[in-house]
Amino acid sequence: MRTVDIIAKKRDGGELTPDEIEFFVQGFTRGEIPDYQASAWAMAVFWRGMTDAETTALTLAMARSGETLDLHDVAPIVVDKHSTGGVGDKTTLAVGPVVASLGIPVGKMSGRGLSFSGGTLDKLESIAGWRAGLTIAEFKAQLRDVGLVVAGQTADLAPADGKLYALRDVTGTVPSLPLIASSIMSKKIASGADAIVLDVKTGRGAFMEEEAEALRLAELMLRIGRSMGRRMAAVISDMSQPLGRAVGNALEVREAVETLRGGGPPDFQEHTIVVSSEMLRLANRARDAEEGRRLAESALRAGRALAKFREFAVAQGGDGRQIDDPALLPRARLVEPLPAPRSGYLAAMDARKIGLAVVDLGGGRAKKGDPIDYAVGVVLSAKVGDRVEKGQPLLVIHANDEARLREARARLLGAHTWSDEAVSPPRLIRRVLG
Amino acid sequence: MRTVDIIAKKRDGGELTPDEIEFFVQGFTRGEIPDYQASAWAMAVFWRGMTDAETTALTLAMARSGETLDLHDVAPIVVDKHSTGGVGDKTTLAVGPVVASLGIPVGKMSGRGLSFSGGTLDKLESIAGWRAGLTIAEFKAQLRDVGLVVAGQTADLAPADGKLYALRDVTGTVPSLPLIASSIMSKKIASGADAIVLDVKTGRGAFMEEEAEALRLAELMLRIGRSMGRRMAAVISDMSQPLGRAVGNALEVREAVETLRGGGPPDFQEHTIVVSSEMLRLANRARDAEEGRRLAESALRAGRALAKFREFAVAQGGDGRQIDDPALLPRARLVEPLPAPRSGYLAAMDARKIGLAVVDLGGGRAKKGDPIDYAVGVVLSAKVGDRVEKGQPLLVIHANDEARLREARARLLGAHTWSDEAVSPPRLIRRVLG
Repeated sequence: MRTVDIIAKKRDGGELTPDEIEFFVQGFTRGEIPDYQASAWAMAVFWRGMTDAETTALTLAMARSGETLDLHDVAPIVVDKHSTGGVGDKTTLAVGPVVASLGIPVGKMSGRGLSFSGGTLDKLESIAGWRAGLTIAEFKAQLRDVGLVVAGQTADLAPADGKLYALRDVTGTVPSLPLIASSIMSKKIASGADAIVLDVKTGRGAFMEEEAEALRLAELMLRIGRSMGRRMAAVISDMSQPLGRAVGNALEVREAVETLRGGGPPDFQEHTIVVSSEMLRLANRARDAEEGRRLAESALRAGRALAKFREFAVAQGGDGRQIDDPALLPRARLVEPLPAPRSGYLAAMDARKIGLAVVDLGGGRAKKGDPIDYAVGVVLSAKVGDRVEKGQPLLVIHANDEARLREARARLLGAHTWSDEAVSPPRLIRRVLG
Repeated sequence: MRTVDIIAKKRDGGELTPDEIEFFVQGFTRGEIPDYQASAWAMAVFWRGMTDAETTALTLAMARSGETLDLHDVAPIVVDKHSTGGVGDKTTLAVGPVVASLGIPVGKMSGRGLSFSGGTLDKLESIAGWRAGLTIAEFKAQLRDVGLVVAGQTADLAPADGKLYALRDVTGTVPSLPLIASSIMSKKIASGADAIVLDVKTGRGAFMEEEAEALRLAELMLRIGRSMGRRMAAVISDMSQPLGRAVGNALEVREAVETLRGGGPPDFQEHTIVVSSEMLRLANRARDAEEGRRLAESALRAGRALAKFREFAVAQGGDGRQIDDPALLPRARLVEPLPAPRSGYLAAMDARKIGLAVVDLGGGRAKKGDPIDYAVGVVLSAKVGDRVEKGQPLLVIHANDEARLREARARLLGAHTWSDEAVSPPRLIRRVLG
């Protein structure tokens, strides 16, 4: 088998066999197939697409390119969730404790912030002492003892995916459905998930802006997962405006804690319940989505979810007092409202611009390895559909630097669109594919 | 400017600006743009194509990526020819001496054999002592003193093209018209040609099998050259069967010498006259193709072309006695006819299979740097349209190894198609674009 023939076959629209895909992924992982062949291949895939059979073979080959995790010694059924990423998306912080508090172990490998989208690990690290770097043994022990663990992905899990993603990032081959789907699914498969709930975001604050595209991605991942015998569900949800009200690491932890206390913004509350419910259903803890919803609601109301979050955070070194009193989390020096420049109905918010404004405040990374200011961010006072009077606060900016505050102010004003007519808010949950 | 944005622009079907192309070619040549970005870009170009403006900008950028040759101090007008390569294509060996003997200096950078197609340098190196590695000063001196020089391309000429071609070769991005056209033209522009005759081959023994595709390539190169102010002409010629009768390095030199003596196979004679005539016309040595033809015929008849060939070969270290008596050129130990397996008309010959059979006899390279056996090859006794009786020789195999001879025998039989009906031979000259 010659790599150049595999590239040419895909270039000419052919369907690669599982053997050809395995050969390619193994060779690439071992460094025998050079980056320049892999990137030409990725561009050919971008152009010609892949059949489900090819995408499944690619997922499997990448999942098997390194270690694979088997958690069945500590959990009878391993349920995972994956979000395609968005602005203000602190879902894992609420859903994990809800599901775990209902007796379903959740062991999750998470990532860091990427471009305008925040990362679960960054958010959790705003809790003093909390650490993401666990060994496999620590991960398993906590999953058994606490029922909830969130850690950084180890390099040994699906290394082909990590290597290919880094290459795609600099060769214009990121936005390809089969490559996105296999990238996500390979990590989930490698980390031992039996059941996976996909939280696929759509809108300006998501990587898939178009709902039809998000739906195609979700359906593709469902087919791949099911063809591998996994139980699968997908939620397609709105990311045209940020989820909830808080955007920024410590601010989002605070909002998650409020939500676990039974409060929090209604949209984030609802999103937490829907995703939890699907996880409970796939884990056979709930007969159907209705029962899942009732269980999730009761876990939030009774404070069991909050208690589980505290237990989890402390188990990974976090300071529990910051959960008891989120005012102890990192706080910004400058906290200033942004007054509405006019009266009217908020017609649209550009979630991507808001996410980038928070990155520029210091809350995210311009490039890998940059330090993060956990305290900064924004808290929305109004969301799409709300009536706001001129001079009322539109949002509150949390900053640690005057110049950055000024810049954020201008950018954030530009992220809002107004209407004189009443506007209906965007539907949060677009589809649940069960 | 970011390379990934240039890749994405081309991926999405955009037209790159001359600045973007210059940025890309310069960065790639200097090693600042890595191979993996260049190969993804090449695949995007393969897919999306290029406008004439882009192809011209790419040609110019590659031509300027290294040294450029200015030969006007030794030749008032520099005429060059380029063949897209084929089987039995020894055209330069005959055309160069014809044109040079008529007072038009020919200074040519040539290449080596590639896959099934032989290389001019390899053929000339079958003359004892002949050497291709000349310095620029030697090249110019010989062009001035002899009027004919053929040398290997120096690495300093259009280095971007050399680097990009090597990458395309292993990433499935060779067969792209704009990339082929700019590769050929950049070298011609860098080597200082004022006028260029393109010898574009079509058929199974050419890189462009389809005549329509060959025509598109020729027309594209004519447009690029003319937009840069070069005088251009193109000949589209048949390569469904080998050109002439000899395939193999020393055998082709022998055939070229026979042709320069006024003999040789009629098709090769005709091809030599047509290409020479176009060169003479572009160089203003002939008013039109008719006059060019008469001049070329007279140069062959009068022996002036042969004398020029001898002078040229000796100037580059070659043994002149081998030109006087080609029987002194390297000769194979085993010379055996291949008898026709049946009676009938020869309906088709697969030139590519014949070329590959000669490579396997040792006459070409499986990979760069392999040694070459100059003596081996085949001499066709029959060409398409000929009537052959069973047992008559179809061709004569020249080999130095029993096992290889046996293999060649089987392969060569498989390269012939027969008919009971009379068959007209393929038209040699398909088009002359002047």
